[in-house]
Amino acid sequence: MSILKALLSGVSGGSIEVVDLTAPLSAETPILQLPPPFANTIPFGLEEISRYDDRGPAWYWNDIHTGEHTGTHFDAPIHWVTGRDGDDVSQVPPRRLIASAAVIDVADRAAKDPDFLLEIEHIREWEAVHGPLPEGGWLLLRTGWDTRSGDQEAFLNANETGPHTPGVSVAAAKWLAEESPVIGLGVETVGTDAGAAHSFDPPFPCHSYLLGADKYGLTQLRNLDRLPPTGAVVIAPPLPIVGGSGSPVRVLALVEK
Amino acid sequence: MSILKALLSGVSGGSIEVVDLTAPLSAETPILQLPPPFANTIPFGLEEISRYDDRGPAWYWNDIHTGEHTGTHFDAPIHWVTGRDGDDVSQVPPRRLIASAAVIDVADRAAKDPDFLLEIEHIREWEAVHGPLPEGGWLLLRTGWDTRSGDQEAFLNANETGPHTPGVSVAAAKWLAEESPVIGLGVETVGTDAGAAHSFDPPFPCHSYLLGADKYGLTQLRNLDRLPPTGAVVIAPPLPIVGGSGSPVRVLALVEK
Ligand SMILES: [Mn+2]
Ligand SMILES: [Mn+2]
Repeated sequence: MSILKALLSGVSGGSIEVVDLTAPLSAETPILQLPPPFANTIPFGLEEISRYDDRGPAWYWNDIHTGEHTGTHFDAPIHWVTGRDGDDVSQVPPRRLIASAAVIDVADRAAKDPDFLLEIEHIREWEAVHGPLPEGGWLLLRTGWDTRSGDQEAFLNANETGPHTPGVSVAAAKWLAEESPVIGLGVETVGTDAGAAHSFDPPFPCHSYLLGADKYGLTQLRNLDRLPPTGAVVIAPPLPIVGGSGSPVRVLALVEK
Repeated sequence: MSILKALLSGVSGGSIEVVDLTAPLSAETPILQLPPPFANTIPFGLEEISRYDDRGPAWYWNDIHTGEHTGTHFDAPIHWVTGRDGDDVSQVPPRRLIASAAVIDVADRAAKDPDFLLEIEHIREWEAVHGPLPEGGWLLLRTGWDTRSGDQEAFLNANETGPHTPGVSVAAAKWLAEESPVIGLGVETVGTDAGAAHSFDPPFPCHSYLLGADKYGLTQLRNLDRLPPTGAVVIAPPLPIVGGSGSPVRVLALVEK
């Protein structure tokens, strides 16, 4: 049997599960909140055009107002100044949108410390058990933060010192960008960087290093607990927005049972 | 080798090609134009939030204003009054978003007659050569209309009697919805119905019959000429818009060489 026939047969028969890693999009979808003087994104919103009424008797439809970086979304290289000469979201090669995934689970640590940072040594510990990070695949960081995604306040977890959410250290971000074989980093939080990363050196190291290295970001993922540490395939195809810095994206994972 | 390993190996090695079926999204993306008194969708637009400047020194990002039914997009059952008790775009089961495709090429006929309609007999002729339409797969109608997609006027092709673009007859739409095993219909035009379908009985039969039968629509596809008549896998994962009637979607096809 051909690979594609086997894939379809597995999906329809249930031996290949399709796991939805995407948060639902609505006005309640949490969004990033930057302090002044920085400009912020709008929340997701629908504007009704017609609903089986005089404006359209047989049809219901809406306009959409959203940010490129709202909800589960894809960060393209040009999102960051370090990647400004890189690809916009429409230029990412299609074959890079279907890739393997390594899932590192630090939910226990993040539950004890919301400022938990993934270090190179944690990745090395994971590799000692599961093998090297995948060439051209995603590193997906499971922190358990998706359980907070229904509540903007709990999700951003900010106090007078700013937001407190788990992420990746400066050294690990640099290593992932420059030395590891991954194509990008996927997280459960509102952005790929830790809540406290505004005060790191450099600030926002995941954005700075990974996007500057022609790598990508995926945010606000969920259901990572349904993926094995290795072996899942992630499909993360952003909208081909010409000149876009990112895009809301439906992220699906394939898991073979 | 597992199916997923073989899939990844094929994609990275090039024996499985990833074909992008999606039109680029920009202010130039053609949109549907309904006559008064019906309300219309807005065009696609980006609104800059910051671009490596005072509003965000290290980052560039935009807000997005668009219709659910703008550019390459997915029609969910609730888009039409016949499917109003059906799924919204966030409720479509994820495993239905990865499906096989049958491609019927009528580009020669549509080039001679912009009002060309696919009839059941054309599908039967195709089936006589290629076998039955796929269970749970897409019927993709290749009309060559994607060559006009850079020009709103040529794409809508309207005159004093309304738009003239190819599509599907009333009888064929009813048969596809009620008797065929397909999951939905994908087209290269601005909507799944022919340009003249406003005056059919019932009006807009593809929308009316298919969405009323818990099936889907895909529009404004391109690169269908790069797909074989059978054997391609289509990945068409809409954004999970809560209550959404449709969604812009990045559609990818896998083709085994
Ligand atoms: Mn982002
Ligand atoms: Mn539509």
